[in-house]
Amino acid sequence: MSNQQRIKGVLAPVVTPFDKDLNPDAPRFIAHCKWLISQGSGLAAFGTNSEANSLSFNERIALLDALLASGVDPARMMPGTGCCALTDSVRLTEHAVKAGCAGVLMLPPFYYKGVSDEGLYRNYSEIIERVGDDRLRIYLYHIPPVAVVGITPKLVERLMKKYPTAIAGMKDSSGDWKNTKVFLDNFAKSGFDMFVGSESFLLANMQNGGAGCISATANVNPAAIDKLYREWQNPDAEAQQKALDVARNTFGKKYLMIAALKAGVAHYSGDAQWATVRPPLLELTKDEMASLTAELQAIDFDMPGLKEAQS
Amino acid sequence: MSNQQRIKGVLAPVVTPFDKDLNPDAPRFIAHCKWLISQGSGLAAFGTNSEANSLSFNERIALLDALLASGVDPARMMPGTGCCALTDSVRLTEHAVKAGCAGVLMLPPFYYKGVSDEGLYRNYSEIIERVGDDRLRIYLYHIPPVAVVGITPKLVERLMKKYPTAIAGMKDSSGDWKNTKVFLDNFAKSGFDMFVGSESFLLANMQNGGAGCISATANVNPAAIDKLYREWQNPDAEAQQKALDVARNTFGKKYLMIAALKAGVAHYSGDAQWATVRPPLLELTKDEMASLTAELQAIDFDMPGLKEAQS
Repeated sequence: MSNQQRIKGVLAPVVTPFDKDLNPDAPRFIAHCKWLISQGSGLAAFGTNSEANSLSFNERIALLDALLASGVDPARMMPGTGCCALTDSVRLTEHAVKAGCAGVLMLPPFYYKGVSDEGLYRNYSEIIERVGDDRLRIYLYHIPPVAVVGITPKLVERLMKKYPTAIAGMKDSSGDWKNTKVFLDNFAKSGFDMFVGSESFLLANMQNGGAGCISATANVNPAAIDKLYREWQNPDAEAQQKALDVARNTFGKKYLMIAALKAGVAHYSGDAQWATVRPPLLELTKDEMASLTAELQAIDFDMPGLKEAQS
Repeated sequence: MSNQQRIKGVLAPVVTPFDKDLNPDAPRFIAHCKWLISQGSGLAAFGTNSEANSLSFNERIALLDALLASGVDPARMMPGTGCCALTDSVRLTEHAVKAGCAGVLMLPPFYYKGVSDEGLYRNYSEIIERVGDDRLRIYLYHIPPVAVVGITPKLVERLMKKYPTAIAGMKDSSGDWKNTKVFLDNFAKSGFDMFVGSESFLLANMQNGGAGCISATANVNPAAIDKLYREWQNPDAEAQQKALDVARNTFGKKYLMIAALKAGVAHYSGDAQWATVRPPLLELTKDEMASLTAELQAIDFDMPGLKEAQS
């Protein structure tokens, strides 16, 4: 399996729908995943925007199994499997690899702060050794604004040296292009696939040897983001990038991104239940929902085919 | 059960032993718990110093069940049950309450940062409603240096108003006496039991109407800390406090506290396996272990009866 095709392009950290009792809702989840795939997006289920850490281990496994059973191709999946507990990370990763997922997106253990690179190295190393599967492709997940614990170039260098096949790339959600550039300059040529955590950096990432993006707003604007991924060398790439930024800012600049994404899915699918989040997050207020909707209409935003996919 | 005796005094966030394969080691854990009880300490198992968030849900349940089966009185237990996932917090809390534990120590969900008091209120409220047991006593866990997400006076006020029996108190591990004082001044008279997160604040806490302390170093120095708790009105209380501070600083000032505590247990029990921690933490190096041991000898530190308890 060492020649397997690497997953690249645009992936959505799939938002997780909840029912009225705050349980994960598998049918809505699968419908959204299938719509995303139809729009050219891969599935980074169980990311930050998926409220993955607000789900129990069993809830994650159940959703992933339901998705796999629905017939969606696991080669388009990069589920999040990095937990605070080593044993949870191992079991989730094992499950994803055995199911044939293209890769896994792996947070560092994020409870203890100020941990050393040596400690993080041991965490990733233990996971790789315990999973013990040649098909494993890990994408390290750097999101210091949320996890606080982050991924350094020195850690990547050491991991790649020891595990050149398993360490496949990284998602950089630092929001700091200079940081992304350091990893691109140091590792992209060695086959380390850099995904930016926002499509605002997609063009810059592709121009510097990156692999794509894994972005919140791929949940709502997947086709346009995928278009720039495929056409980044076209003359209108800058214009495409600007249009993507406008859409992204409409969701994320004034509102809590996760709640706004779900409000968007609720609005365009006509299914109000989609707006629900789990504590400690809050859904948008009615006023916020109304102003978001108005702002989206003002930029002619749409999610074509979503209503049909969700019904 | 509304007249049940509240748990007070000194509790240890029990350090969790691991075997050579990094699995939690129930026999060593039980032996340490029994030794702590014999020294006057209660058991706040599954706290920060317990590496609780480095354990899976099932590993926590298994350790708690083993401890309960060993005959230790659950009236002396306040296990940590606050997780990122609402459903995990509910199930762990339910388990502890049904087993008769005196209370539970509850972290806020700590993955998302900058969450609102309303979001945290909903988290705790959902847990209380779902557990739905009059015996539930929650001690809110404020530890901003690690969890980043914290507990505010406004949140406590709102929770106490709605759940006057279930919201029983708080552990303040901010390390900021001014913060503890705010909670004492506002809530102690209403029966809100304040535990400081370090015995360095024990005397001050008792002088201001507090309930005790839940402290890392209660793992290694329980009898002396319990003595000050019982004798805080004695003339030598200041002297006792100073001696406690010296011991605490020997463990925590130069070394990572959790690793140093385990090194201490390893040294005084003669069982080197105790020094093991799970990634992302690191055990002390051989040099650190040697210097810690020398520093402990220099202050005539001892853990009487530990060797016998662990053998």
